[in-house]
Amino acid sequence: MEALENAKRAVAELPGIVHLTLAGGEQGLKRLSVWRQTMAPGCATPPHQHDCEEVVLVADGSGEVHIGGEVHPFGPDTTLVLPPGVPHQIFNTGDTPLVTVAAFSATPVGTFLPSGERLELPWKS
Amino acid sequence: MEALENAKRAVAELPGIVHLTLAGGEQGLKRLSVWRQTMAPGCATPPHQHDCEEVVLVADGSGEVHIGGEVHPFGPDTTLVLPPGVPHQIFNTGDTPLVTVAAFSATPVGTFLPSGERLELPWKS
Repeated sequence: MEALENAKRAVAELPGIVHLTLAGGEQGLKRLSVWRQTMAPGCATPPHQHDCEEVVLVADGSGEVHIGGEVHPFGPDTTLVLPPGVPHQIFNTGDTPLVTVAAFSATPVGTFLPSGERLELPWKS
Repeated sequence: MEALENAKRAVAELPGIVHLTLAGGEQGLKRLSVWRQTMAPGCATPPHQHDCEEVVLVADGSGEVHIGGEVHPFGPDTTLVLPPGVPHQIFNTGDTPLVTVAAFSATPVGTFLPSGERLELPWKS
């Protein structure tokens, strides 16, 4: 088994987002990935979809999920369950960092634009 | 999609452990489960194994994983990667609650004693 001290691990970044792959292919996983992200106020993910199931635990902060023409606001300590293959976008609408832990039923996690084009991300999953 | 306010959800308990299934079969998941547990100081899980991959994020507190004859101490903000089918036991060796978020590559999560006998748990996954 592995016990990884997260504070000592290298992070990746997108504009407004700091990302850490807590566990994935580099830890020998085949069917599971876990990510943690911190998003600055006023920022958002790109619109995107995954080819697997996704559960997001909102550890801190608040925001909105835009999915299928709907807007779902959320506060801290919320669980978001996102179906495979449905484009969505997560916004930090609060004035504090939005901290999320996301679990996926795949390694690697396939991430795609709403057009279906693969979205290349600056981290491994 | 679902946005679930965790503070309003019903928890389950084992001695010294308060459990919330953040997401699993009841949320329509087929290949992913996410649990959160708070373990009191001095307490431990039963020795057990799962039939799937497991990643544990130690959100708060400290403890030890006993697995394969080894003892792995951990502090807060540690990621534990536990292989399928290997008996392990998690102890809270600190003096504060041990808070963990665990992701599994299955729904439901099969949980077994080291003997291989199924361990019936008082929650759904």
